[in-house]
Amino acid sequence: MNISYRLADIAAQFGGRVLGDAGVLIAQIATLEKAQSNHISFLTNSKYRAQLAGTRAGAVILGEADAEATDLPRIVSDNPYAYFAKVSALLNPLPEAKPGVHPSAIVGTGAQIAPTASIAATAVIGDGATIGAHSVIGEGCCIGANTVIGNHARLYPRVVVYHGCIIGDNLIAHSGAVIGSDGFGIAMDDGRWIKIPQIGRVVIGNDVEIGANTTIDRGALNDTVIEDGVKLDNQIQVAHNVRIGAHTAIAGCAGIAGSAVIGRYCMIGGGARILGHLELADHVEIAAHTLVGKSIREAGSYAAIFPFSKIDDWRKNAVHLRHLDDLAKRIKTLEQELKSLNSESLKGQN
Amino acid sequence: MNISYRLADIAAQFGGRVLGDAGVLIAQIATLEKAQSNHISFLTNSKYRAQLAGTRAGAVILGEADAEATDLPRIVSDNPYAYFAKVSALLNPLPEAKPGVHPSAIVGTGAQIAPTASIAATAVIGDGATIGAHSVIGEGCCIGANTVIGNHARLYPRVVVYHGCIIGDNLIAHSGAVIGSDGFGIAMDDGRWIKIPQIGRVVIGNDVEIGANTTIDRGALNDTVIEDGVKLDNQIQVAHNVRIGAHTAIAGCAGIAGSAVIGRYCMIGGGARILGHLELADHVEIAAHTLVGKSIREAGSYAAIFPFSKIDDWRKNAVHLRHLDDLAKRIKTLEQELKSLNSESLKGQN
Amino acid sequence: MNISYRLADIAAQFGGRVLGDAGVLIAQIATLEKAQSNHISFLTNSKYRAQLAGTRAGAVILGEADAEATDLPRIVSDNPYAYFAKVSALLNPLPEAKPGVHPSAIVGTGAQIAPTASIAATAVIGDGATIGAHSVIGEGCCIGANTVIGNHARLYPRVVVYHGCIIGDNLIAHSGAVIGSDGFGIAMDDGRWIKIPQIGRVVIGNDVEIGANTTIDRGALNDTVIEDGVKLDNQIQVAHNVRIGAHTAIAGCAGIAGSAVIGRYCMIGGGARILGHLELADHVEIAAHTLVGKSIREAGSYAAIFPFSKIDDWRKNAVHLRHLDDLAKRIKTLEQELKSLNSESLKGQN
Repeated sequence: MNISYRLADIAAQFGGRVLGDAGVLIAQIATLEKAQSNHISFLTNSKYRAQLAGTRAGAVILGEADAEATDLPRIVSDNPYAYFAKVSALLNPLPEAKPGVHPSAIVGTGAQIAPTASIAATAVIGDGATIGAHSVIGEGCCIGANTVIGNHARLYPRVVVYHGCIIGDNLIAHSGAVIGSDGFGIAMDDGRWIKIPQIGRVVIGNDVEIGANTTIDRGALNDTVIEDGVKLDNQIQVAHNVRIGAHTAIAGCAGIAGSAVIGRYCMIGGGARILGHLELADHVEIAAHTLVGKSIREAGSYAAIFPFSKIDDWRKNAVHLRHLDDLAKRIKTLEQELKSLNSESLKGQN
Repeated sequence: MNISYRLADIAAQFGGRVLGDAGVLIAQIATLEKAQSNHISFLTNSKYRAQLAGTRAGAVILGEADAEATDLPRIVSDNPYAYFAKVSALLNPLPEAKPGVHPSAIVGTGAQIAPTASIAATAVIGDGATIGAHSVIGEGCCIGANTVIGNHARLYPRVVVYHGCIIGDNLIAHSGAVIGSDGFGIAMDDGRWIKIPQIGRVVIGNDVEIGANTTIDRGALNDTVIEDGVKLDNQIQVAHNVRIGAHTAIAGCAGIAGSAVIGRYCMIGGGARILGHLELADHVEIAAHTLVGKSIREAGSYAAIFPFSKIDDWRKNAVHLRHLDDLAKRIKTLEQELKSLNSESLKGQN
Repeated sequence: MNISYRLADIAAQFGGRVLGDAGVLIAQIATLEKAQSNHISFLTNSKYRAQLAGTRAGAVILGEADAEATDLPRIVSDNPYAYFAKVSALLNPLPEAKPGVHPSAIVGTGAQIAPTASIAATAVIGDGATIGAHSVIGEGCCIGANTVIGNHARLYPRVVVYHGCIIGDNLIAHSGAVIGSDGFGIAMDDGRWIKIPQIGRVVIGNDVEIGANTTIDRGALNDTVIEDGVKLDNQIQVAHNVRIGAHTAIAGCAGIAGSAVIGRYCMIGGGARILGHLELADHVEIAAHTLVGKSIREAGSYAAIFPFSKIDDWRKNAVHLRHLDDLAKRIKTLEQELKSLNSESLKGQN
C-alpha cells in the first residue's frame, strides 16, 4: 500500500500553487479517466480540458491556463507534465534492493563492490570490475572485467556490459541491453572477411537510461561515447565510435551507424536510421522511420516518410517513382514546346 | 525416433477424406521435395501441383481442387495448410520437461509453483510470483515479483518478465523476449529529462506467442494489453499502453508506438511502424516496412513502400522527390497556359 | 601491457615493403590523430593523406600510392585496410579463457565438452551437446540438447542456441544472440491461429560472426543455412529457411524474411528488409533502409530510400505521392493536347 501525502506536502516539495483543499490525501497518480478520490491526476494540454468534468480524482495538476477549469483541489504548475513525473516518482519509489551479494552470484578476483550495492541471484561480476554505491545489478547480469559502474545504477535482469567500459552515475539499463559488444569491423582480404579487433570502449555519462534489448557497440580504436542525460528506448542499435550528445532522446528501434556524431538535445524518432560518419547539429529532430544520409548542420525537424495508402492506390502511384526522372523531363519538354508555341502564336498575331 | 501413425488414424483425429491406402504408416512430415516413403507431405496451393509428380512421400495432404492430382494415399481437407500444422504437431510433440525446480534455480519467498510445472537450471522466480500447471520456465529466465503466469506456458531460455505482469494460459515466449520493461516516458524539466515512473502492467491473454528478443513495455499508468491469440514474431517492439486485438499477427522487427490500439485479426508486415496514439480497425493489413502515421478506420490492405531499383536509377529518380511540389505546380501552370492557348486558338479560328 | 614488435617483425609476418627505420618498436595500433610514438597507424584512403603531417605515430601502414607521402617508418601494402586488421589482431590477442567447466555451470547428460574448451559461470550445456576444442562458452549461455558447436568458437555472455543446431568452427556470437528459435509459422483455422511446429535446424558454416541480439530462426521443415564466412551485425533478424551465401555481410537491424536465398559476397545495408521467398544473386549490394520485394538476378547496387528534408518541405512534397498517378496522367493529357495543338498550328500555317 502506498504512503499518502497531503496536497500541501506535495506542493511544499515540488512548488506550484495550491488551489482548493490543500489537505486532501493523495496515495497514487492516475489518468483523469481512471483516478479515484485518493488519486491525483493531471491535465497537460488544454485541448483535453473537457475530461476534467468527469474525473473522480481527489486533486489535479494543471497549467496556469487551466487553473480555473475545475473546482477540484489542484496544483497549478508552469510545467504540469514534469510535475506529474515528479509526483509519480514520489508516490512510486522503486522497491529497495537489499545490499549485498546473493550467494548464487559470482564475483571475480579484485572486483570492488560498494557495501551498499546489491548483486542479485546468478549475476556475474568480472575480475577487477567496480560497482558503485547503492547500485543494483539484476539477476543474470554479466559485468565484464575491469568495467566501472558508478553509483545508484539500476540494471534490470540479464543486462550485459562487456569488459573495460566506463559508466557514470544513475544508469538505468533494461533487460537484454548489451553494452560494449564488438563493433562491426571487417576487412576484405583475398576473398575472405577478416575481423578488425574492437579495442575501444563504451563510455557512458551520468543519468543515462538504456531500453530493453538495446545494443551499444564498443569503439574500434577510439571509444563509443554516450553523454550525460541521454535517453535510449528499446531495441536501438548504436554502432562503434558513435557519439550521442547530452540530453538527446532516441525512440525505439532506431539505428545509429558507425562514427555518427549526434548533437545535444536531439530527438530521433522510432525506427529512424542515421548513416555512418555524419553529424547532426544540436536540437535536430528526426521523424520516425526516416533515413538520414547526410550531415544536418542546422537545428530543426527533418523527415522522409512515404505516405501510406490503400494498397491498390499505393501500387498505382508508386510505380511512377521508377520513372520520376522521365516525368520531370517530359514536363520540361512540354514547357519548351509550349514556350515555342506561344512565341509562334504571338508571331501569328502580329 | 518418432511414433508412426496410419493415415486412417490421422484422419480419425483431424477429419478429412482419405483416398488410397489408409494403412500407410507415417512417422514424419516433410516438403514434397524432401519427403521419404514414411513421410506425409502437403500441397496447399494448386499452383505447385506439378511437384506432386516427383515426390517420394508416402502420403499427401491436399485440398478438394487437387484431390485427383495424384494417386498417392492422401487426405483431402478444406484447409490443407491448417491440416498440415495439426499433423506436424501430432508427429512432433514438444519434449516433456521434468516437473520440479532445478537445484540451481532460485525461487523467491511466497512464490507459488504448480507441482506439474518445471523450473529449469539458473531460472529465477521472484517473490510472490505464480507459475501455473504444466508450465515450463527455461534456463536463465527471470520472472518478476508477483507476476502470474498461467498454465501450459513454455518460456525458452533467458526470457524476462518484470514484476506484476499477468499472463494467461499457453504462452510461448522465445529466448531474449522481455515483457514488462519500463515504457519510454520522460518529461523535459529545465534542460533535463526526468523519468516518468511506469506503474502499469503488461496483461497478456491466452494462446499468445512472443518471438525471440521481442520487447513489450509495461504501461505508464494503465496497462499494456495483448489479447488472446496474438502472435508476435522476433524483435518486435511494443511500447507502453499499446493494445493489440485478439488474433492479430505481427511479423519480425515491427514497432508499435505508445498507446496505439491495434484491432483484431490484423496482420502487420515485417519492419512496419505504427505511430503512437492511433487506432487500426479490425482486419487491417499493413505491408512490410510501411509507416502508419494516421488511424485506419476501414479494414483492408495498406502500404507505403519505395520501389527499389539499381542505385543509379534510384539516384536519378529520387532527387525529384525534393521537388515534387514544384513539378506539380509546373503541371498546373502548363494546364492553365494550354487552356488559354486553346481558347486563343479557338478565337483565332473564329 | 601489450608486447612490442619491431616493424621488421610485423612485415616478416604479414608481408609488405618496409621503408624507413625497420627497428621501431610498436605496441599498439591507433588512428593517425591519436597515435603515440610506440603506435602504428594507417592510411587507407589517399584523400586523408594530409593527416599524415600531424601524426605522432611511430610508424604507418599505407598503400603504394601513398608510399612516399611521409618520412615515417612505414609498411607499404596492397591492401592497407586488411593489413591494419591483421596487425591489430597481432597486437590485441583475445584474453585466454581458462579451459574447464566453471563449478556454477550446468552440463547435461551425455554432453561432450573438449578438454581445451571453457564453459563459464552459470552457462548451461544441454543433454548430448558437443562443444569443440578451444571453444569458449560465455557466462549465462544456453546450448540446447544435441547441438554441435565446432572448434575455436567464442560465445559472449547470454547467447542462446536452441536444440539440434549445427555450427562450424570459429564462430563468434555476441551477447543476446539467439540461434534456433522457432520460425514464425502459423496457420489460420476457424478463426484461430494454430502453430506450425518448427522442426528444421539452423546450420552454420565456419568463420561466421553473429552480432549482439541478432536472431536466427530454425527451419520449419528444412534447415536455415548460414554459409562460411558470413558476417552479421547486431539486431539482425533471419527468418526460417533463409539461406545466406558465403562471405555475405549484413549490417545492423536488417531483416531477412522466410525462405529468402541470399547469394555469396552480398552486402546488405543497415535496416534493409528482404522479403520472403525471393533470391538475391551473388555480389548484390542493398542500400540501408531499402526494402527488396522482388528477386534480384543481377549483381550490382540497389536502393530505395526516400530523401530526407526539412519537415515542411517534406510535407509539401510528400503529399503528391498519393497523386502521382494523377500527375502522370495529366502530363500525358498535356502531351496529347499539345500535339493536337501543334498539328492545328501547323495546319494554320499551311
